[in-house]
Amino acid sequence: MKRKLRMGMLGGGNDAFIGAVHRRAAFMDGLVELVCGAFSVDPKVSKESGEALFVNPDRVYLTYQEMIEKESQLPADVRMDFLTIVTPNFVHFAPAKMALENGFNVVIEKPMTFSLEEAVELKEIVEKTGLTLALTHTYSGYPMVKQAKAMVANGELGKIRKVIVEYPQGWLSRLSEREGNAGAAWRTDPKKSGKSGAMGDIGTHVAHLAEYVTGLKISELNADLSIVVEGRMLDDDGNVLLRFNNGANGVLIATQIAAGEENAISMRIYGEKGGLEWKQHDPNNLYVKLLDRPVQVYRPGNAYMEPYTLSSFATHNTRIPAGHPEGLLEAFANIYRNFVLTVSAKLNGETPTAEMLDFPQVDEGVRGMAFVDKVVESNNSNEKWIKVD
Amino acid sequence: MKRKLRMGMLGGGNDAFIGAVHRRAAFMDGLVELVCGAFSVDPKVSKESGEALFVNPDRVYLTYQEMIEKESQLPADVRMDFLTIVTPNFVHFAPAKMALENGFNVVIEKPMTFSLEEAVELKEIVEKTGLTLALTHTYSGYPMVKQAKAMVANGELGKIRKVIVEYPQGWLSRLSEREGNAGAAWRTDPKKSGKSGAMGDIGTHVAHLAEYVTGLKISELNADLSIVVEGRMLDDDGNVLLRFNNGANGVLIATQIAAGEENAISMRIYGEKGGLEWKQHDPNNLYVKLLDRPVQVYRPGNAYMEPYTLSSFATHNTRIPAGHPEGLLEAFANIYRNFVLTVSAKLNGETPTAEMLDFPQVDEGVRGMAFVDKVVESNNSNEKWIKVD
Amino acid sequence: MKRKLRMGMLGGGNDAFIGAVHRRAAFMDGLVELVCGAFSVDPKVSKESGEALFVNPDRVYLTYQEMIEKESQLPADVRMDFLTIVTPNFVHFAPAKMALENGFNVVIEKPMTFSLEEAVELKEIVEKTGLTLALTHTYSGYPMVKQAKAMVANGELGKIRKVIVEYPQGWLSRLSEREGNAGAAWRTDPKKSGKSGAMGDIGTHVAHLAEYVTGLKISELNADLSIVVEGRMLDDDGNVLLRFNNGANGVLIATQIAAGEENAISMRIYGEKGGLEWKQHDPNNLYVKLLDRPVQVYRPGNAYMEPYTLSSFATHNTRIPAGHPEGLLEAFANIYRNFVLTVSAKLNGETPTAEMLDFPQVDEGVRGMAFVDKVVESNNSNEKWIKVD
Amino acid sequence: MKRKLRMGMLGGGNDAFIGAVHRRAAFMDGLVELVCGAFSVDPKVSKESGEALFVNPDRVYLTYQEMIEKESQLPADVRMDFLTIVTPNFVHFAPAKMALENGFNVVIEKPMTFSLEEAVELKEIVEKTGLTLALTHTYSGYPMVKQAKAMVANGELGKIRKVIVEYPQGWLSRLSEREGNAGAAWRTDPKKSGKSGAMGDIGTHVAHLAEYVTGLKISELNADLSIVVEGRMLDDDGNVLLRFNNGANGVLIATQIAAGEENAISMRIYGEKGGLEWKQHDPNNLYVKLLDRPVQVYRPGNAYMEPYTLSSFATHNTRIPAGHPEGLLEAFANIYRNFVLTVSAKLNGETPTAEMLDFPQVDEGVRGMAFVDKVVESNNSNEKWIKVD
Repeated sequence: MKRKLRMGMLGGGNDAFIGAVHRRAAFMDGLVELVCGAFSVDPKVSKESGEALFVNPDRVYLTYQEMIEKESQLPADVRMDFLTIVTPNFVHFAPAKMALENGFNVVIEKPMTFSLEEAVELKEIVEKTGLTLALTHTYSGYPMVKQAKAMVANGELGKIRKVIVEYPQGWLSRLSEREGNAGAAWRTDPKKSGKSGAMGDIGTHVAHLAEYVTGLKISELNADLSIVVEGRMLDDDGNVLLRFNNGANGVLIATQIAAGEENAISMRIYGEKGGLEWKQHDPNNLYVKLLDRPVQVYRPGNAYMEPYTLSSFATHNTRIPAGHPEGLLEAFANIYRNFVLTVSAKLNGETPTAEMLDFPQVDEGVRGMAFVDKVVESNNSNEKWIKVD
Repeated sequence: MKRKLRMGMLGGGNDAFIGAVHRRAAFMDGLVELVCGAFSVDPKVSKESGEALFVNPDRVYLTYQEMIEKESQLPADVRMDFLTIVTPNFVHFAPAKMALENGFNVVIEKPMTFSLEEAVELKEIVEKTGLTLALTHTYSGYPMVKQAKAMVANGELGKIRKVIVEYPQGWLSRLSEREGNAGAAWRTDPKKSGKSGAMGDIGTHVAHLAEYVTGLKISELNADLSIVVEGRMLDDDGNVLLRFNNGANGVLIATQIAAGEENAISMRIYGEKGGLEWKQHDPNNLYVKLLDRPVQVYRPGNAYMEPYTLSSFATHNTRIPAGHPEGLLEAFANIYRNFVLTVSAKLNGETPTAEMLDFPQVDEGVRGMAFVDKVVESNNSNEKWIKVD
Repeated sequence: MKRKLRMGMLGGGNDAFIGAVHRRAAFMDGLVELVCGAFSVDPKVSKESGEALFVNPDRVYLTYQEMIEKESQLPADVRMDFLTIVTPNFVHFAPAKMALENGFNVVIEKPMTFSLEEAVELKEIVEKTGLTLALTHTYSGYPMVKQAKAMVANGELGKIRKVIVEYPQGWLSRLSEREGNAGAAWRTDPKKSGKSGAMGDIGTHVAHLAEYVTGLKISELNADLSIVVEGRMLDDDGNVLLRFNNGANGVLIATQIAAGEENAISMRIYGEKGGLEWKQHDPNNLYVKLLDRPVQVYRPGNAYMEPYTLSSFATHNTRIPAGHPEGLLEAFANIYRNFVLTVSAKLNGETPTAEMLDFPQVDEGVRGMAFVDKVVESNNSNEKWIKVD
Repeated sequence: MKRKLRMGMLGGGNDAFIGAVHRRAAFMDGLVELVCGAFSVDPKVSKESGEALFVNPDRVYLTYQEMIEKESQLPADVRMDFLTIVTPNFVHFAPAKMALENGFNVVIEKPMTFSLEEAVELKEIVEKTGLTLALTHTYSGYPMVKQAKAMVANGELGKIRKVIVEYPQGWLSRLSEREGNAGAAWRTDPKKSGKSGAMGDIGTHVAHLAEYVTGLKISELNADLSIVVEGRMLDDDGNVLLRFNNGANGVLIATQIAAGEENAISMRIYGEKGGLEWKQHDPNNLYVKLLDRPVQVYRPGNAYMEPYTLSSFATHNTRIPAGHPEGLLEAFANIYRNFVLTVSAKLNGETPTAEMLDFPQVDEGVRGMAFVDKVVESNNSNEKWIKVD
């Protein structure tokens, strides 16, 4: 039963950007075909999007309810295998729940849900159904991020002492939500986005990155969120001091008003024996700084000799020879590929490898929502430190 | 008649790397489906590759002759629309010729043919058939390379005076062709690769880049090729002085023995009013250095204001928002997408836009083979300068 | 009365590193001669240092008291013009006070004093005597830092919203103070260093940088200091959330346990209209990121046209033509040169220009000590925010 | 006899830039004092320069002849120890010859002389007098260039195969010599500059760099010089193919019309086992790229453990702790310091160490003039390759 997996899509019409990113990520490896979708709440947009995507018009739906119901009634070898949900945050939980309860695996944009409560409930549903949910925390899909994780796990830095993660953007430096920017509009609307703006939208990404790469958990935080641009309703900027469950300290910065910045995600991790640094704008270089040695620059696709050999997790997630840059779409595609390999393995009664299972799932989604909850709680509190969990 | 185009593939079995690159590039945008292939001269490899690629076993062929014949007999709405040729150089011309003569468009790896004579003949066939041939000079597919071309064309640098292009690799620093590296083996074999090794394999890429971006033609050259690694039969290294048809001078370096380098393609172009620099290892930054001004760094996906607005050629070839890096696969996919849009437009009786037509075609292939010819002639000559037509 | 100024030196023997930095900075421009010193508490070291520095043995002293007394008795055209103090923090105040009270100008290492109280008193003495005190917050001496300050002052970024300053070092990742490292020993000893370790030694540098470049004042802070290396007595690491007097927020990181980092000072400042970035490891590039425009890279020594013209503060502090890198010693020398030009102007009854007066003085020293005080207070408090006067 | 050395200066008045660079380089380490000078052919400029430099007016001379004669008559413990010559090329030989013949050591700007014949004669004089001549090929003074030389000498790259050196400048992109730029005027005047413009002025720098770091000699070359800017009389641009005496090939690019470039000197060297890269704009990073290993970045001032330990030649030429950038003035000062240490050792009857002797001397000056000669000969010839030596 080797075949492509069949994808359905909620959201992602022609007028949205993230849907196209998901599709390219899903299509790149030739393992997925798009078979149905409810691409927009606007029936015209949904229909046109379906056409442009070569989807059978019979399987372009108006709502997720209709999609899930009708797909459920199709023969097993026709209906979608999984549903990708790329709607605004407040339309994540209900379709994910319904899809899972009808037997469909799910790929979902972050933050996973609108509230922590929804996240916890979704986790229960995933566990009950035994299905697979992938959460697109894209940045953990880069090969050099996986190399970093492997090196930390391997003890190359010694005990971790300090973690600095950042996600600076500048696109909300002005009140773009009132200038017809639809993505800005829902992200800055508490009824659609949730309790937090910047922290939910991008802070969760780097909180995930910190925990993913170090294998640690954020245990306490001390947050300062700001609404920098007057007239906005949710935080567009935040600085958070962190403490981790092994005693390490940290700093997390997530801002959408760093004028002039694009998506300058960065991560620096320091341990007893050395540090490492990774930046999304230079994603194929991992700078490893061990005490008493020249800085080493690890790059994907290389057949380094012992003891420099790249981790199997890095190589599994690299597509092309050394020196040919890979970017965000490939990192995104790594999540899709691993999700598909995992689902296919399960469908075939096989056990997915550790490399296949290495993508963000429902637990990471719950962590992310707890992070948002606690950051907002801390910001509203005069107490210096707020415990997480 | 909106539909995906149907791709057939010659070469690119599981044991080859460039085939997988072509497929990802072709699949990424959801505009192409793989319907048939002769993936390997080894029937077992071909069959297994077909399975792994979910190709109907009936359409996995043993030879290109069989593929082209049988596909020709299929109904028009079933048979392949185009053939991608990713075999070693000596198996480019014959299948391309046969494909074109049977009505199939062609995507072909560089260098286009084994010899200049074949290249010239292929150009005649393309012109006669009116079909489309895409040549995968990948590096001209990067958005910031297209931005560079647009800025030069727009006169922002003034008259071009000097061009420096380089393609340093280190992978042939040892005699890898005798250590079981199949790619190294045929590339260093004059019977399979052609007159030149490094210059044919990678020198042609940067010769193309120089002419593509400047809009100039190399008119004279003075070449020094070397066989650096003892026991090798073709040049693995070369330095070439250039003169262009507007009087500009230049330097082209292509080497496979620059130990420690990966694929460090770079391009620097200087005109009366300023210069620009682009490097593949940092592909999303275009450094523009105008006299009397701070260096400017152009990056894809940005909505710069006048007079900095990115060229329509750059934006047409960018998939994701600013700050999310794109890489080689996206550059490669730009060639496929433009090829597919061009072929689809023609199939639909429409006129492709200038942006769609902006991919390397048969003329560039002839230029590349002429470059190889003249570089080898110059290297064998005591005359300082050799004219290129 | 054009002549070199005569320098005396307290500390800076052959066994110390910072003394040599001061001397090179002082000598570089040919405006200063070293005439006397008490180079070490060890008479042998002091004597040998004096010899190596070609100082008249009669003017090599054992203590600062002796030096100041004896120099005071020398003829006006012989005795030192100023005293450079490069002893550990606990030996800053008393010699500075005595020097000033005896009519000598002073150059002093940061942090200015052992305690805030001393700093406040020193300010009074400086004001009373009308003499000049320079504080070597070196990093504000770089031309591109001055360019940044000028651009902020000129409104090019609009109102400042966010400031991120960092000083990561890794040299105290181990308990080096117990391994014979003298510099580590006193810096980690509360009796010699003061209330704080990392924050006093390097946090003050970047707090100064933030206030210097933005022209703002830190008004509140929320600090998390750590003793990361077991057995140490003072903080070796700290993260501080900041608020500035115009409402901007900020982050300050100063750490000496970022294993693998050298002196990776960085500064990022964001305003309504754009941001800028500067890093000591790349000191001759100032990255200016204005909304809707390509990033611009300003570099010293260039004759940019309007409106890019470099500030007079940047050009005044640049010594060599564009493209020839300057480094820390030149930044340090800028403080000395401006101090000397200011003192000479005063000696000649002239008014120093704004460019001459642009070096850290006693007010900056008081700010630094207040910063240390408040950071330590915040760290010891459960209150989230502590006000800074 | 420990004392500062006494410097005299020919040229370097207030209206010249390179004189000030020499003085800062000479003064920085406190080992040199300026005692006399003939700073300009304009007596007023010379006088004012002397005043500004605090030189005794009695020792400000009108001509080098006067200076050398009068200084010779001063007591041995008063007269200058060495003469620094920073006049245009056509005024190098005669004062150097006269100085040496009168017992004065010499520091001289490159290119050493106006013609190869002069260079050869100067070498004879140096050898006959036993005095020391330093040639300010500044770029070989950088610590990381010395590290590169040491690593090559140590065999870390294996046999050298390929060398690429470049010196791109853009400052002569326009006809600045007719716009009142005095430095441009003499450099582009064959009567003052010599046979070559760009190649003499900056090509010699990188030819020296190539030979210095590799320990090889350029044995053949194939040059293409251009006068790019109309109206100019000497080459402002050149590309040269190289062959070295061990069989390695190379490329040398020196241009003054690379609009937008400052002084972007770079050097890449490849051997059997790896390559290395250094760039003046990033002078404190040496990129070492060994086969099958991550790239390593060596930086000055570090106490790396075995086998990464920095060469004694690198550490001898580093002044400040790791992470504090050094620049051109420090590289320049390394030449002065080593020259002074060598001369002082000789004066004291001691043997200078290898580290002291590591500065460009008269032999390098002869090599440079031979390079200029052969490059011009090659450019004028139809023969492809011209032998050097």
